[in-house]
Amino acid sequence: MSFLDHIRRCNNADLSAFDPWFVGPHRAGFLHRDFAREAIADSGLFEHRDDGWHLDPALDTPDKRGATMRAFLLGLRERGHFKGLWREEAYDVAPHEGHPVLMTMERAAVPWFGVRAGGPHMTGYVRRRDGLHIWVPRRSYEKPTFPGQLDNTVAGGQPAGLGLHENLVKECGEEASIPPALAQQAKAVSLVAYWNQSGLQLKPDVMTCFDLELPEDFTPRANDGEVHSFELWPVQRVFETVRDTTEFKYNCNLVLIDFFVRHGMLSADAPDFPAILGGLRMMHLPM
Amino acid sequence: MSFLDHIRRCNNADLSAFDPWFVGPHRAGFLHRDFAREAIADSGLFEHRDDGWHLDPALDTPDKRGATMRAFLLGLRERGHFKGLWREEAYDVAPHEGHPVLMTMERAAVPWFGVRAGGPHMTGYVRRRDGLHIWVPRRSYEKPTFPGQLDNTVAGGQPAGLGLHENLVKECGEEASIPPALAQQAKAVSLVAYWNQSGLQLKPDVMTCFDLELPEDFTPRANDGEVHSFELWPVQRVFETVRDTTEFKYNCNLVLIDFFVRHGMLSADAPDFPAILGGLRMMHLPM
Repeated sequence: MSFLDHIRRCNNADLSAFDPWFVGPHRAGFLHRDFAREAIADSGLFEHRDDGWHLDPALDTPDKRGATMRAFLLGLRERGHFKGLWREEAYDVAPHEGHPVLMTMERAAVPWFGVRAGGPHMTGYVRRRDGLHIWVPRRSYEKPTFPGQLDNTVAGGQPAGLGLHENLVKECGEEASIPPALAQQAKAVSLVAYWNQSGLQLKPDVMTCFDLELPEDFTPRANDGEVHSFELWPVQRVFETVRDTTEFKYNCNLVLIDFFVRHGMLSADAPDFPAILGGLRMMHLPM
Repeated sequence: MSFLDHIRRCNNADLSAFDPWFVGPHRAGFLHRDFAREAIADSGLFEHRDDGWHLDPALDTPDKRGATMRAFLLGLRERGHFKGLWREEAYDVAPHEGHPVLMTMERAAVPWFGVRAGGPHMTGYVRRRDGLHIWVPRRSYEKPTFPGQLDNTVAGGQPAGLGLHENLVKECGEEASIPPALAQQAKAVSLVAYWNQSGLQLKPDVMTCFDLELPEDFTPRANDGEVHSFELWPVQRVFETVRDTTEFKYNCNLVLIDFFVRHGMLSADAPDFPAILGGLRMMHLPM
């Protein structure tokens, strides 16, 4: 592996297999042709035009769209879709980088509809006399996704109706027992964005990177069963583990590479420097 | 003005007025149709094909291409092009984000050929007990470009054959009398990229952002006539001046906005946060 390999691994989407879908003039996401043929084409909910799929314009409010979509998705679930991953957790569907919210959608369905998701990913670090250290959690071996992999100190999906910082403070309490007054001090310092494909699913995701300097005498503690254990690693060990292995969950590598860059650990004259920095923030449609 | 306005002002290019030009299979830059008609079409140096202009393939080494291009550009200069801006300074022409270097080109011609340029832009800051401060230079009133405007602490174009960090250390000495041992400590922490058009010229530029923490008792001093004066400003004054005015040279605003983000001065929940972060790093061809 290399830093660029992690970026390529996250940006593995073949957009030519997808068609966009729209709510009015707004592109809301992307549908894989095979999923569209199987689940969308005869649903009566979407009309196919030259530029992609269009949600029934009679659904003219976010509430109507959300309710109709929910009923449709529950039908898909009955036919065996989403398996154990249905969460009863609503995500916002919004035009890329835009407002307002077009509707909400069950989290498990979001990547099937190629809807941009995101959430806070926080690196909790300690400045010790012997150098920078990072608190590294290992995901619970019971989690349905990426069990046992290494993760960002605190990270979570972004539910509808919550601010990013508010959500981070909540996750800091749940995942790492970081008290609210300490979690509040986390700073939003970057964005990492990628276009990831997994089978028929597309994740054009944007993660908001937070840094939080933690006091030396604070030890994060798993609180909600999502984390198996925390270890405090010298930043150089994190750097080498990211660079040389796939031990971290795939997208967490990008958040850590961004941390390494912002903390001055890469040389501007490294041959991959521009490609890495450009690749960490693929906000726009790849060509 | 707003932060987004500065990003839009830098990304003002209308690519539909330009055609790419190639060296073999590599896109080297872009030519405005009017400039191409006037200077390129009958030059014998380029052939027009469906996908753009192709440099004569008989020029099969960087040296041959550079020498022929130089003779051609000197001819343009004789016909009144480039005016007082001819520098006798060679820039590298390289495929975007790629290697190897295809040829060198006189700096003054680079934006006429829509060739990506760049260079180090450094923010020199001081951590005082009363908060972060930034050293802000005002450009000399004698400079041919952007006289009297505010600038990044140290910034320079990137000449061929020099490393970015090496170039920064040189510029730190020339522009601000920062001794080499101190300048060496600057860290490359980000990239800022934009697509700027000025008349028939295109700058698809990438600036490498460096941070350098300076000791409280160090005062930068103009050394080469490029800087009129340095002032130490509280970061909040820099923040407000960038946000509300056009006193800084247009692209320097982006480097400072990137600094503000990395130093935790923007909220993740500000409505423009994703648009700003995405807009600061427009590495790829806008659609």
